[in-house]
Amino acid sequence: MSLNRKDLLGLKDLTADEITLILDTAEPMKEIIQRQIKKVPTMRGKAVVNLFYEPSTRTRTSFELAGKYMSADTINISTSTSSVVKGESLKDTAKTIEVMGTDVVILRHPVAGAPHILARHVSASVINAGDGAHEHPTQALLDMYTIREKKGTLAGLRVAIVGDILHSRVARSNIFGLTKMGSEVRVVGPATLMAPEIEKMGAKPYYNLEEGLQDADVVMVLRLQLERQQKGLFPTIREYARIFGVTKDRLKVASPDVIVMHPGPMNRGVEIAPDVADSVEAVINEQVTNGVAVRMALLYLLAGGGNPHEPAN
Amino acid sequence: MSLNRKDLLGLKDLTADEITLILDTAEPMKEIIQRQIKKVPTMRGKAVVNLFYEPSTRTRTSFELAGKYMSADTINISTSTSSVVKGESLKDTAKTIEVMGTDVVILRHPVAGAPHILARHVSASVINAGDGAHEHPTQALLDMYTIREKKGTLAGLRVAIVGDILHSRVARSNIFGLTKMGSEVRVVGPATLMAPEIEKMGAKPYYNLEEGLQDADVVMVLRLQLERQQKGLFPTIREYARIFGVTKDRLKVASPDVIVMHPGPMNRGVEIAPDVADSVEAVINEQVTNGVAVRMALLYLLAGGGNPHEPAN
Amino acid sequence: MSLNRKDLLGLKDLTADEITLILDTAEPMKEIIQRQIKKVPTMRGKAVVNLFYEPSTRTRTSFELAGKYMSADTINISTSTSSVVKGESLKDTAKTIEVMGTDVVILRHPVAGAPHILARHVSASVINAGDGAHEHPTQALLDMYTIREKKGTLAGLRVAIVGDILHSRVARSNIFGLTKMGSEVRVVGPATLMAPEIEKMGAKPYYNLEEGLQDADVVMVLRLQLERQQKGLFPTIREYARIFGVTKDRLKVASPDVIVMHPGPMNRGVEIAPDVADSVEAVINEQVTNGVAVRMALLYLLAGGGNPHEPAN
Repeated sequence: MSLNRKDLLGLKDLTADEITLILDTAEPMKEIIQRQIKKVPTMRGKAVVNLFYEPSTRTRTSFELAGKYMSADTINISTSTSSVVKGESLKDTAKTIEVMGTDVVILRHPVAGAPHILARHVSASVINAGDGAHEHPTQALLDMYTIREKKGTLAGLRVAIVGDILHSRVARSNIFGLTKMGSEVRVVGPATLMAPEIEKMGAKPYYNLEEGLQDADVVMVLRLQLERQQKGLFPTIREYARIFGVTKDRLKVASPDVIVMHPGPMNRGVEIAPDVADSVEAVINEQVTNGVAVRMALLYLLAGGGNPHEPAN
Repeated sequence: MSLNRKDLLGLKDLTADEITLILDTAEPMKEIIQRQIKKVPTMRGKAVVNLFYEPSTRTRTSFELAGKYMSADTINISTSTSSVVKGESLKDTAKTIEVMGTDVVILRHPVAGAPHILARHVSASVINAGDGAHEHPTQALLDMYTIREKKGTLAGLRVAIVGDILHSRVARSNIFGLTKMGSEVRVVGPATLMAPEIEKMGAKPYYNLEEGLQDADVVMVLRLQLERQQKGLFPTIREYARIFGVTKDRLKVASPDVIVMHPGPMNRGVEIAPDVADSVEAVINEQVTNGVAVRMALLYLLAGGGNPHEPAN
Repeated sequence: MSLNRKDLLGLKDLTADEITLILDTAEPMKEIIQRQIKKVPTMRGKAVVNLFYEPSTRTRTSFELAGKYMSADTINISTSTSSVVKGESLKDTAKTIEVMGTDVVILRHPVAGAPHILARHVSASVINAGDGAHEHPTQALLDMYTIREKKGTLAGLRVAIVGDILHSRVARSNIFGLTKMGSEVRVVGPATLMAPEIEKMGAKPYYNLEEGLQDADVVMVLRLQLERQQKGLFPTIREYARIFGVTKDRLKVASPDVIVMHPGPMNRGVEIAPDVADSVEAVINEQVTNGVAVRMALLYLLAGGGNPHEPAN
């Protein structure tokens, strides 16, 4: 049982079978997280480096705990403390990290495609933890895990992704993954924040929230990048909240057993109303737990025990 | 043997019996720190997160080592590297950390009461590592441990706390704890830095250093917040050092076997003279070692082995 | 088999026998790094603190992994997150770290001699990870390990160190170490970047690259501190690259089996041409791997298992 891959760079390249393998592998991992003693020896003697060129508590901590629960040695390198300030190229930095004995490099980078470049230059496994506005595959995998856990399947579900589609790597990875798994994916947002290639990607654009949410089984609310909207672009934060903010009232047109998701951190009162965030429909905390489980599964599949590719040396 | 508490938020709420239990539990922990091999499996498979919204090497490192000596998985999150910058609420951040499987959250926060709010919203144990000018309970516990170790008891001792009482969470926690344990607590400082509620808290204010130190068994020197005094308030740093700086000469009125304490980091030559800091009376290094022991005891009592409250999941 | 030393402060003080012992001990350590399971219990229950007053991914990560591969507890303290901002003296900070149970303090500090001062005040082992323009002994040890591994010996080899000799702690430590081991050391660079004491140290200065590289067995290229040159000093970066940049063409006068080294991070196209950096002659990645091995050896020799000096308490 193996991915037969060195890296996880994006969901665009994965097959439905590979996605299913990752989600299946995450199930026993989730049980480990819920034990009194969260510790298995799966990654003992393996080194995992979080190489983060953008800050992120949530993703970094999730990977770090995933590694630690499996007894890996984990190392954090962030731009603020790293010799990145000395102007070394990403490739040289990564090669340096690898030849210290690193088995997996988790890369968060502001430039789309950075993990792909890296993966070609190091023999260590590379996991994309978010590259620019391109992909954030582990977020999409945890989202799919959560949906499958709640609904039993991904096939045939109506999933509405609401928000700033244009700049969202979370939306892109979910569209790639969900369409492969047979979901009907709708993306909902203002025209100014809609990505032009949506239909080519297999999703259907909606510019009206009520239409987009009609009979939806899953509503996936994206985080609004306040920094971006504060520059006075249309829509403003206030306009966005009024027109596209997901409220209890607006959810009434969705399926009666709809679930509501958010990748966090939430802007309560902007893209999501506080009573929705704390409602029984919301599975936001489950998403976080499942994030650790999915990352444990990936570390295991890429670098655990008997993986075939040559470890770094 | 358990605290029957989920959290440690302050010494105001603890009973004398609970304080005694913590101090007693810290004794075998101190022996572990002094071994050649400092490693016990007590917290194996438990995750401890240091969530620091204010910088602090000393407290963070002490908790981190306390966790590691007991085989816990430890994670550090500080504002400078965290997604706190993205404006997420403390409650959402903490909930996120908890549902990743965290058993204990250590919180340092500039706002008084922040740990109490947190503790109500997460099922993980919360330890207050300093909240504004409110409480710093683990510092007071290590201080009490040190006094008890040196003097055999806390009851009936004359303890003089010298410095900026008004802004000191260390002073507040020590007053709560020491009065419960039967010590006579004096607070000594200029009127401008004296807290109005001192007498209600059971301590006696002194505005003259010589009077305050008369026959004292313990002199606890507080760190002067230079930032505060540099703004030109009375007293200036120079005036403070001249009138309230603890020197060898001024200690002559204290008990012949007085001990001198400081929570660190010291401003040598301001609140404490260098020859006092390095004297045989000073137990400042012991305080630091005892800090690790007390924190090990707390981690163990709140989240070790067979604790009754539900672990995070 | 022991160093009979508490600290590693510089190569100036080591004997040839001690250097040989360290390099010999690093050999089995390197094998550990190349295993599928990189984990030995050598430093279990030992605490290693990286105390860095200057940023450095490479050195910090190397020491951190060296500790983790041997099961040590590792703690990172950097100026940006530390209470160093509160103005505590280095001595008080280090004493505090030590009495928490720390066995080894790794110190990177901008001031020459800082590790020596520290070593006198703490009973923990101190390893100098770079102090000002003074010494960087672990870098020189990994360089010597790499040369010995490739050439079989250090004695009688012609080693040319090229670059900013004046400000380079790497150059100084290598000169001390290599001359002790019987190498012929040449230093090559512009007169404005040449250290006046070179000849007293046993090396020979060259102001012309071609002459310096003539028949060299080893070319050690130093990193040009761009920050320094950007201030408009002679030579400028451009002039430096033209006159002293190591290129394929210029290497032709060296020995046919010359090896090329660089401590990293490289300024490709400045002190080293990209095709040299990626050539078969370059052993730059091996240097990085060997750095972990040499640091494992030092941690083991100074604080592993049955070390004689009293551990911190």
